Amino acid sequence: MSPNVERARTESAPTSVTDIIASVVPTSTASVRYRPLDASGVSLGAGFWGTRQTINRERTIPRGAEQLRKAGNLRNFALAAGADGSYRAEVGDAGLVYPFVDSDVYKWLEAVGWELRRAPDASLSRLADEMIGLVANAQLDDGYVNTFVQVGAPGREFADLAWGHELYTIGHLVQAGIAWQRALGDSRLMAIARRAVDRVDAELGAEGRAGVDGHPEIEMALIELYRTVGDERHLSLARRFIEERGHGLLGDDRFGAAYWQDHAPVRDAPTVAGHAVRQMYLDCGAVDLAVETGDSELLEAVIHRWNDMVATRTHLTGAIGSRHRDESFGDPYELPPDQAYAETCAAIGSVMLAWRLLLATGEERFADHLERTLYNAVLPGVSLDGQEFFYVNPLQRRRQYLPSGGPDVATRQPWFACACCPPNLMRLLASVEHYLATVDHTGIQIHMLATCTLRFGAPGEETVLDVATDYPWDGAVRIQVVRTPERPWRLRIRRPAWAASGQARLADQELVWPSEPYIDLDRRWRSGDVLELTFDMPPHYVTADPRIDAIRGCGALERGPLVYCLEEADLPAGVTLDEVVVLRDRPLAVEPGPLPLAPALAIRARVATFTRPFSAWPYYVPGAESTPSSTSELDVIAIPYFAWANRGLGGMRVWTPETAASIAPRQSDQT
Amino acid sequence: MSPNVERARTESAPTSVTDIIASVVPTSTASVRYRPLDASGVSLGAGFWGTRQTINRERTIPRGAEQLRKAGNLRNFALAAGADGSYRAEVGDAGLVYPFVDSDVYKWLEAVGWELRRAPDASLSRLADEMIGLVANAQLDDGYVNTFVQVGAPGREFADLAWGHELYTIGHLVQAGIAWQRALGDSRLMAIARRAVDRVDAELGAEGRAGVDGHPEIEMALIELYRTVGDERHLSLARRFIEERGHGLLGDDRFGAAYWQDHAPVRDAPTVAGHAVRQMYLDCGAVDLAVETGDSELLEAVIHRWNDMVATRTHLTGAIGSRHRDESFGDPYELPPDQAYAETCAAIGSVMLAWRLLLATGEERFADHLERTLYNAVLPGVSLDGQEFFYVNPLQRRRQYLPSGGPDVATRQPWFACACCPPNLMRLLASVEHYLATVDHTGIQIHMLATCTLRFGAPGEETVLDVATDYPWDGAVRIQVVRTPERPWRLRIRRPAWAASGQARLADQELVWPSEPYIDLDRRWRSGDVLELTFDMPPHYVTADPRIDAIRGCGALERGPLVYCLEEADLPAGVTLDEVVVLRDRPLAVEPGPLPLAPALAIRARVATFTRPFSAWPYYVPGAESTPSSTSELDVIAIPYFAWANRGLGGMRVWTPETAASIAPRQSDQT
Repeated sequence: MSPNVERARTESAPTSVTDIIASVVPTSTASVRYRPLDASGVSLGAGFWGTRQTINRERTIPRGAEQLRKAGNLRNFALAAGADGSYRAEVGDAGLVYPFVDSDVYKWLEAVGWELRRAPDASLSRLADEMIGLVANAQLDDGYVNTFVQVGAPGREFADLAWGHELYTIGHLVQAGIAWQRALGDSRLMAIARRAVDRVDAELGAEGRAGVDGHPEIEMALIELYRTVGDERHLSLARRFIEERGHGLLGDDRFGAAYWQDHAPVRDAPTVAGHAVRQMYLDCGAVDLAVETGDSELLEAVIHRWNDMVATRTHLTGAIGSRHRDESFGDPYELPPDQAYAETCAAIGSVMLAWRLLLATGEERFADHLERTLYNAVLPGVSLDGQEFFYVNPLQRRRQYLPSGGPDVATRQPWFACACCPPNLMRLLASVEHYLATVDHTGIQIHMLATCTLRFGAPGEETVLDVATDYPWDGAVRIQVVRTPERPWRLRIRRPAWAASGQARLADQELVWPSEPYIDLDRRWRSGDVLELTFDMPPHYVTADPRIDAIRGCGALERGPLVYCLEEADLPAGVTLDEVVVLRDRPLAVEPGPLPLAPALAIRARVATFTRPFSAWPYYVPGAESTPSSTSELDVIAIPYFAWANRGLGGMRVWTPETAASIAPRQSDQT
Repeated sequence: MSPNVERARTESAPTSVTDIIASVVPTSTASVRYRPLDASGVSLGAGFWGTRQTINRERTIPRGAEQLRKAGNLRNFALAAGADGSYRAEVGDAGLVYPFVDSDVYKWLEAVGWELRRAPDASLSRLADEMIGLVANAQLDDGYVNTFVQVGAPGREFADLAWGHELYTIGHLVQAGIAWQRALGDSRLMAIARRAVDRVDAELGAEGRAGVDGHPEIEMALIELYRTVGDERHLSLARRFIEERGHGLLGDDRFGAAYWQDHAPVRDAPTVAGHAVRQMYLDCGAVDLAVETGDSELLEAVIHRWNDMVATRTHLTGAIGSRHRDESFGDPYELPPDQAYAETCAAIGSVMLAWRLLLATGEERFADHLERTLYNAVLPGVSLDGQEFFYVNPLQRRRQYLPSGGPDVATRQPWFACACCPPNLMRLLASVEHYLATVDHTGIQIHMLATCTLRFGAPGEETVLDVATDYPWDGAVRIQVVRTPERPWRLRIRRPAWAASGQARLADQELVWPSEPYIDLDRRWRSGDVLELTFDMPPHYVTADPRIDAIRGCGALERGPLVYCLEEADLPAGVTLDEVVVLRDRPLAVEPGPLPLAPALAIRARVATFTRPFSAWPYYVPGAESTPSSTSELDVIAIPYFAWANRGLGGMRVWTPETAASIAPRQSDQT
């Protein structure tokens, strides 16, 4: 499991790399295997992700601004600047006002920063200018900015590091500032952010007191700020926050020290634990610190946790989080489909972490997991029309689902009292092309297949590739070399773990399908060269490790990178998903699906249905139970999980009992 | 499903029945099938329940008084009476002070009321006198008493009916008052309680405003008060609270209207919903109201909900509650063993409800369920030594269980911030003999088998029975008639649903084992008659309705009324319960168990163990998964579930995968 880290790190000051426009841009001296492309050279075309990005830009982001205004997030900044009025008093689950709502504005601004580079938009610019102005006006002379404290508890800056989320919100401010700086060269937010960071540094930096935020986030923001402006103070402050964590500074409070990863030092904790978003954000910062400082021990600690998380605490969709009470990871193999927490933000954090681990190590498994999580755990968080959101993404919903009340139940909502997820989706979708490909000294690595144009290489040596594909609906990909330097370079394309077979053809030459997790082509390229790849993506069932108690005896459908689900909307009237078993030995077929998102493909599968008489007591001596009163077979269709709940809310299952044994125990077992 | 209700209710005022000493004493005009014995005539001997009751009296109740003092519950009353000091500010999960802590004192007092009748105890009397004095001093001139409001929000009486628990605490005060009145003829608490109820009546009664408490409890207390003192106002007020519920008076708040059963009228709601304890307490009050007013529609509504609850929302142990977030019932068949909430108080409420339904209808199934719940859902809530408690009673605990923090995790605790369960256990165990038997005009019905003496019948016609048994360890029961009137009467003994076979012998006559759920003996009895019964209780596996997703493919062990579990303490070193499957076709044996509670019997069962290599991703195409690296068979012992976690906390399972198919999918299923 040794990560493939380049150890040869020079001790010289890092080169500023602000000419690369991406979310994560390691310095030139960072110990990374791969580096991001200049994202300005990645343009998504009208494929799957391009379409999602357009909906995000045209429907979701404008709606987000409306919701932020309506919810009072904007007014809060005016109040902090001295206006009259009452603070947004959204009451949360705990009967408390959420102190982190500023961050929703910053995440929205980050999304708009990326989008305005893609194309100007007068309406978005006007809204962004208004918000930037509000933030600037709210900032105190000493750099402090947090409307919750300024309005509700003036003078109590940094008094409640455990729950106050002040560093968390400033972290998001920094990330928004970086996006505007990198994407647009606009330094307004960056100036605000740097002053805020200086205030944090004075309070908690080398000359200040010890203290960490209850919600990690600022760590990765500080390192990205260091990468942007080259000031070592920011790297030091991030290191301080990471090293101070796990020594009890936060206390146990009501969910225990592991809730905020304060139970063990970051370089020691053997497994992920506690609040899933917090763990992901923390480990993102830890990887950033590790690669910038050549700290392979710290990197190994994160990879060790990641291995454990993926092996024992990750749902099939890539989602993480099993408990509603504290939004936490559960025990190993505690992965209930119905009560999955699977928060959208946690999936986004997992994508951010997998990307950082991919850059650090170059190992394709991180890209495999990133892709799974992006399609099946992030994307379900927003409706196909871009207007409604899931906070929680369960893998099963019974027809008779009874919500437990509150804003975070598994029902698509236009917004949430705790609205962390929607603007997080906005910024990720606005920057999703950052996660497609990387470069190193050998050439380019394409990790995710999407219709796009890729540009890379030094001035005068620029390479341009056109990628065309209907992926994920179809495994055919056409990559055309539009421009290339004379010297040879390597084109590496990830072969997803599920793509055991396929065809590859370069010009007239059939290539051997690789057993390695990538397709490598090292050659002197010519403009006009065309590589045609077809990743075979037959639909297939998967089963789960029997240690995952909650889905024992079930099967799920996958095709390519997509996890599928059954929705009651596609069942005959009167049939519920309580009464279906999948017949795993029958052939599967692919056909056009029923959704308003052409050409979303469905999988046709054979199932058996039954009706079981009401049993007054649902436990019995084997053999004494009621037998199903009728059994019949029929074909049903499964749709991609990310598209569920777009036709009203009925029953849904990713995991379905898979054999008739689930209906009636084997007769031979009777006692 | 029609309940067997006696409809012939006279319209005359009810006869006071305060000469019967029991928790639930329907008036002479109530529409009930069975009536309680004079509980002073039920004396538990040194059998199973007698032993538990002694431990409760000698260990648990005295410890409870210490904890109440330490936690500040007693001081609160002094503060309310004007003393200086700070209110018990136990911070709950929601960051809020719990407003219902007075009820813990009242429940403790109720327990002591029952115990002091059994035998005097100077120490308990002194403690009770102190507490009664504290309550009396705290009560306001107008009868109001609630220390949380008096100390923390004076003048805001009944201002927060949704969350304030003022009627809930007064309900417990009333129940304590009734216990002291009935058991001891001591009217001190009753006088306080009646003044408090008068204050409630003035505020919310016929002349007052509409309003119901967010936590039902006062309804059944008011009806029992009516039964004790004959004042129709109390019956009317209870009816008012029950009829007003379900019309939106409480609002939705954070968990939705169903949380506190305000989503539908009590006589309409088709299923149990929301907070489990609230639903149980509400339905107890509804049954009490129904039988006192001959309201068969209301009774039918409760039975309809009960049927649904038992069929779809009850764990094998009889426990209820599937969600931690709002301590609620979940969807139908949402019954996770690991994340079971299964609150001890909810099980106690379920026992209270089943008893009322048994009295109302005479149907044995309610006694079956009461017994199951008492042994397997209530009793696990207290340690064998009576010193520590469970709030939550999961049916599975992984070795690597990660608590989510907070006071209510599944770990035995000496006390809780929210300490509702321990004193609830104390009052139930102190009055457990109330639930053994009933009478009607035909004779006596014995519903639960325990070593005891039963006395019943009018003066001069008294009947005395001696019952001797090692139940639940042994199915042999000896019932001797010690005294009997001349005229014939019927002895009815419940045949538990699991007791399909057995032997019955009266004098020298072998009786036919009944197919009915009871053994009926109608005859002219003589002193010295001995009935010998043996309920066959072979250990056996049970399986679950496959609609219970979370335990598909698992088996559990039962014997007699007891549910068993595997505990890692009984496994060979190095074997965890993640690596065990039960071999359901192998014979089971009964043998002395390893617990310090002779003669707790264990079940010896054959299992297979395996070790499975670490899998980097726990989902796979069928057939492609790793195979167990070794498989061996061995005998293990299972212990009664109620006795788990008395030897430290390791892994525990009630439900264990039951066939090798759980280890490796069938080869023929490979695709």
